[in-house]
Amino acid sequence: MKVSVIGATGYTGAELVKILLHHPGIELGSITSQCFAGKKISEVYPYLDTDLILEEIDLDRISSESGLVFVALPHSVSMEVVGKLCSRGKKVIDLSADFRLTDPGIYEKWYKTNHTRKELLKEAVYGLPEIYREKIRKSSLIANPGCYPTSVILALAPLCQNEIIEEKGIIIDAKSGVTGAGRKLTLDTHYPEINESLYPYAVQSHRHIPEMEQELSRIAGTEINITFVPHLVPLNRGIISTCYATLRSCFKKEDIFTFYEDFYKGAPFVQILSPGEFPHIKNVIYSNQCRIGIAINNDIKRIIVISSLDNLVKGASGQAVQNMNLMLGLDEKMGLL
Amino acid sequence: MKVSVIGATGYTGAELVKILLHHPGIELGSITSQCFAGKKISEVYPYLDTDLILEEIDLDRISSESGLVFVALPHSVSMEVVGKLCSRGKKVIDLSADFRLTDPGIYEKWYKTNHTRKELLKEAVYGLPEIYREKIRKSSLIANPGCYPTSVILALAPLCQNEIIEEKGIIIDAKSGVTGAGRKLTLDTHYPEINESLYPYAVQSHRHIPEMEQELSRIAGTEINITFVPHLVPLNRGIISTCYATLRSCFKKEDIFTFYEDFYKGAPFVQILSPGEFPHIKNVIYSNQCRIGIAINNDIKRIIVISSLDNLVKGASGQAVQNMNLMLGLDEKMGLL
Amino acid sequence: MKVSVIGATGYTGAELVKILLHHPGIELGSITSQCFAGKKISEVYPYLDTDLILEEIDLDRISSESGLVFVALPHSVSMEVVGKLCSRGKKVIDLSADFRLTDPGIYEKWYKTNHTRKELLKEAVYGLPEIYREKIRKSSLIANPGCYPTSVILALAPLCQNEIIEEKGIIIDAKSGVTGAGRKLTLDTHYPEINESLYPYAVQSHRHIPEMEQELSRIAGTEINITFVPHLVPLNRGIISTCYATLRSCFKKEDIFTFYEDFYKGAPFVQILSPGEFPHIKNVIYSNQCRIGIAINNDIKRIIVISSLDNLVKGASGQAVQNMNLMLGLDEKMGLL
Amino acid sequence: MKVSVIGATGYTGAELVKILLHHPGIELGSITSQCFAGKKISEVYPYLDTDLILEEIDLDRISSESGLVFVALPHSVSMEVVGKLCSRGKKVIDLSADFRLTDPGIYEKWYKTNHTRKELLKEAVYGLPEIYREKIRKSSLIANPGCYPTSVILALAPLCQNEIIEEKGIIIDAKSGVTGAGRKLTLDTHYPEINESLYPYAVQSHRHIPEMEQELSRIAGTEINITFVPHLVPLNRGIISTCYATLRSCFKKEDIFTFYEDFYKGAPFVQILSPGEFPHIKNVIYSNQCRIGIAINNDIKRIIVISSLDNLVKGASGQAVQNMNLMLGLDEKMGLL
Repeated sequence: MKVSVIGATGYTGAELVKILLHHPGIELGSITSQCFAGKKISEVYPYLDTDLILEEIDLDRISSESGLVFVALPHSVSMEVVGKLCSRGKKVIDLSADFRLTDPGIYEKWYKTNHTRKELLKEAVYGLPEIYREKIRKSSLIANPGCYPTSVILALAPLCQNEIIEEKGIIIDAKSGVTGAGRKLTLDTHYPEINESLYPYAVQSHRHIPEMEQELSRIAGTEINITFVPHLVPLNRGIISTCYATLRSCFKKEDIFTFYEDFYKGAPFVQILSPGEFPHIKNVIYSNQCRIGIAINNDIKRIIVISSLDNLVKGASGQAVQNMNLMLGLDEKMGLL
Repeated sequence: MKVSVIGATGYTGAELVKILLHHPGIELGSITSQCFAGKKISEVYPYLDTDLILEEIDLDRISSESGLVFVALPHSVSMEVVGKLCSRGKKVIDLSADFRLTDPGIYEKWYKTNHTRKELLKEAVYGLPEIYREKIRKSSLIANPGCYPTSVILALAPLCQNEIIEEKGIIIDAKSGVTGAGRKLTLDTHYPEINESLYPYAVQSHRHIPEMEQELSRIAGTEINITFVPHLVPLNRGIISTCYATLRSCFKKEDIFTFYEDFYKGAPFVQILSPGEFPHIKNVIYSNQCRIGIAINNDIKRIIVISSLDNLVKGASGQAVQNMNLMLGLDEKMGLL
Repeated sequence: MKVSVIGATGYTGAELVKILLHHPGIELGSITSQCFAGKKISEVYPYLDTDLILEEIDLDRISSESGLVFVALPHSVSMEVVGKLCSRGKKVIDLSADFRLTDPGIYEKWYKTNHTRKELLKEAVYGLPEIYREKIRKSSLIANPGCYPTSVILALAPLCQNEIIEEKGIIIDAKSGVTGAGRKLTLDTHYPEINESLYPYAVQSHRHIPEMEQELSRIAGTEINITFVPHLVPLNRGIISTCYATLRSCFKKEDIFTFYEDFYKGAPFVQILSPGEFPHIKNVIYSNQCRIGIAINNDIKRIIVISSLDNLVKGASGQAVQNMNLMLGLDEKMGLL
Repeated sequence: MKVSVIGATGYTGAELVKILLHHPGIELGSITSQCFAGKKISEVYPYLDTDLILEEIDLDRISSESGLVFVALPHSVSMEVVGKLCSRGKKVIDLSADFRLTDPGIYEKWYKTNHTRKELLKEAVYGLPEIYREKIRKSSLIANPGCYPTSVILALAPLCQNEIIEEKGIIIDAKSGVTGAGRKLTLDTHYPEINESLYPYAVQSHRHIPEMEQELSRIAGTEINITFVPHLVPLNRGIISTCYATLRSCFKKEDIFTFYEDFYKGAPFVQILSPGEFPHIKNVIYSNQCRIGIAINNDIKRIIVISSLDNLVKGASGQAVQNMNLMLGLDEKMGLL
């Protein structure tokens, strides 16, 4: 089966192309780019060892040749393209935020733009396989999660589901490498401005907040509000999310580790570390793994869960391919490390 | 007046020498090193533009020539040297942890060693000038604070003093550059192991915890327990401490900023940033400044205070020189940026 | 066929294991480690997603189960192990320097140790497939090249073979990431000492010099002496070798590019960049590619050839697998990017 | 005396302001910025602890209040401003390239713009104090050298003056931190594009080439042409220039070191390292020092001279202040480390 990538020259799109080029279960069809149409993608990303040429978006042609299409466009630009592909009956994996929030009002508040494809929101499945594996298999429209939400939901889902933590007082302190900020030039990501520096940004205002609250609330069955502070750190890839929550009562450590092990049974890309071990970014980059460490202090009813992943892989393009594998009935791990 | 440095070849000691070499109010006397005695310090740290030679520790000679002595030795080694200097009537600034904790039992529990100079604990003043300026002026033994505690106490003191936050549920997520881990070779600080990585360490077990709890409790007038998770990040210098606390009630934002401004009136090295601004490490490194940003969310009674400083300067040697300036009746800012 | 790795826990050995774990043409048999025997390799390198356990070296067992053995031990330790494997009739790829230099006298001079397996030097083939592809196919002992020599020989071989440059006056200024210095702890590779720094080392005395001179001389058919200055730069992986030579006469640029294209016809891992383009390290890391850019200035008879590769892949373990593929009759590119 | 800075918000201008703020011999007058006029400079560079406000350029006001003016504008923009200040009788230090090349034809060829102030070229003194100290003292227009030329001329001047090396075959392989590329946003200096990378640029075409050739030729008394390849490396500050030349005959090592020591006698900012030692960037950043290491191989008539400096300090603003000190009759080292 041929699959195509619309928006192949952002960091996320290029990572997707890299994975798909070596994926044994599909053939890469069209790749598009507004800025670089007509060029080989290897001229833009020379590490991509392929002669594929970037094209203008031609939805008719893409639809006729592709069984599944990845859309890696900016939010609000994406929804129209996704809508047209859906009406042509294509399976779509959208890497933007446009179909992640089920309530269009919340989308419009946080993204400050109208949602013009509300009718698709009900069909879209939030593409976190560890939570929605079966729904994803049957879906034809996947809203691929954000990088921070993936790290946070995987860290906290077992606690929310098992009513282990208070719904109030959840704090997430996240640290991300600079590819997370994209390829667009900004002073804050100009090399001498971020190298040997580190800074918090979007304090209490990051657009991934409603996405995390929606999913954690859904799992918990009650409304959850979080405090979320992301920081930009001087490295290319990787996220560490350090999550703090309050235990409802005292728990045996072994029980909590067992909750996690059970929750992620059969999930090939989540590793629960042994007690006393915590993740290092170096162990997840360039892979689709999410590694999670847990610390419990019953004296002050505190639990700390620390998760790590590669923002471009499990936090974006690797997860998109994992979703594709499920949608196409392939082995969930195919083509992924 | 001549001042000397015992333990001049760790990162902290060398930074101290660097500052003192250009300090217009004192003359640098002896500098000592166990490993490099007999060599010029410029052979160990070629950026130090001096012909000073590292010596073995000779307390008689150092005492006879110096009015004030900095001790930058490892904890537990330090206390004996400090004791001998004190009994010779010298003013001493100790950069180790040996005299920071007023309760020797807590010291012995966390540092797993006996305290052999308990009688000096009552005399020692915790060397955070923004809190204890007047005491420091009159003291002859200063326990120079740790790097994390400096960043955290400066961030939270105005809140603790004014009963703005709950004493429970304080969380500190700290990020430090690698000089904070010292010059001793370890696999975790071997370049390829930490470059392009980032990791939490000493989760719930860092030795700076009792120091922070002691000082915050003293300021609040009630016992405060904290959750503290430090992370090592791939940069040389700098700390960002992101502190989360729960507001006791709703507060006007302006009032909180006013509390901070009032608290740090006359403190030349603390800057309170405007609402909506948060610190970047690049703006404090190589200086004695501590920059603090504040965010308040009354809806969920959340306050976030983010402080940044250079772990080797305001977090260690710069602060030591600030203390010296106060002890010697010099301008508090002399020789410092 | 099963293949084994002796010395699997250095950076080179671990990279080898990583590649072999996903190689479709072989099965990974034993992996050994002196320091970590009995542990899973995933405890030492958590990014390796395998349950394989590190073993003590047991040459009988390894020989009985493996058709081919990689030896990634330090030089001088390696030669005895290689010797024993050869006498058991195993195919061996040695990643150390022990069999690279055909003249044992030169080996002994530069490595300051006796060569105890001189009889094997004649059998050993220098494992640079772009030069010795056919010999490698038939060989059962491969001396896998050093990282710098690979980058330099690939850069200069077409010029040496075609008598384009003077044999005198060749200068190579090389820059390497820190994994090239290995995993052993040293002050020079302690994070704060090399981060934000850069330095030349082993000026005129690097052990890769005789290896480069031997191979370039062999290709040129005349003795070649080089000036070689390597520099350590603050990044994990990658080498750029900037090579300067003197043209014997004026050459058309197109002709020189044609020499290169012809020389590397059929070499899947060497890319000659277009005139005016030069390699960036980011485009070769994590791949087995070597990218080469060329500049010519006939006015001063100067040619500059700049090559780049990943020191752990094309400069070591990727190249070793490329050699294995040839020795086993597999596709040269199998399992490699 | 008051001094002013025109163009204070580039990396070079801000470094100049930083040094001048703490300079005990002058008072900082006006600072200007086209983009940020009206703002405090501490809003643009928060590490600058001053309330000084950036102004529009008003040459009348600046001339009336200032005894000396630094001009840190882009080339070709600079020459007109410099011209007007000179005609008002002000002492000027120009940090652009506009007055470095004595031959306007060469300037126009390399900078592809007309020189409109040719009459000032004769008055301008090339501001390298180690070569032109006495001329600088008497001059009122200084062309402050480029960063690469400073490192290269200081490395090679003693050899050129003493006829030790051939004038042909000089090769300079330079490596620079990213502030050398300025504050303007480009894809090549976007953090994820240069971090963990390294690349050559402007191969054989860098605009500093004619400046180096002019000065080396002047010192040698004969025309010198060089091969120059700069590389961008992932660090903020610092240059290493590795210079290769051919000895005219055999020289005793001690003699060559003596030539260097004699040449730089009385030069407070140049250190000649002992035989076998070579510079590390970490030892020169944030200082005005240039450190030089030398290796000699008489067998192949090769000499290698490696120099290092901070591109923003000795390579730009520190050197400008050193020139100011000379012009104003102050201690050459005043205000500099």
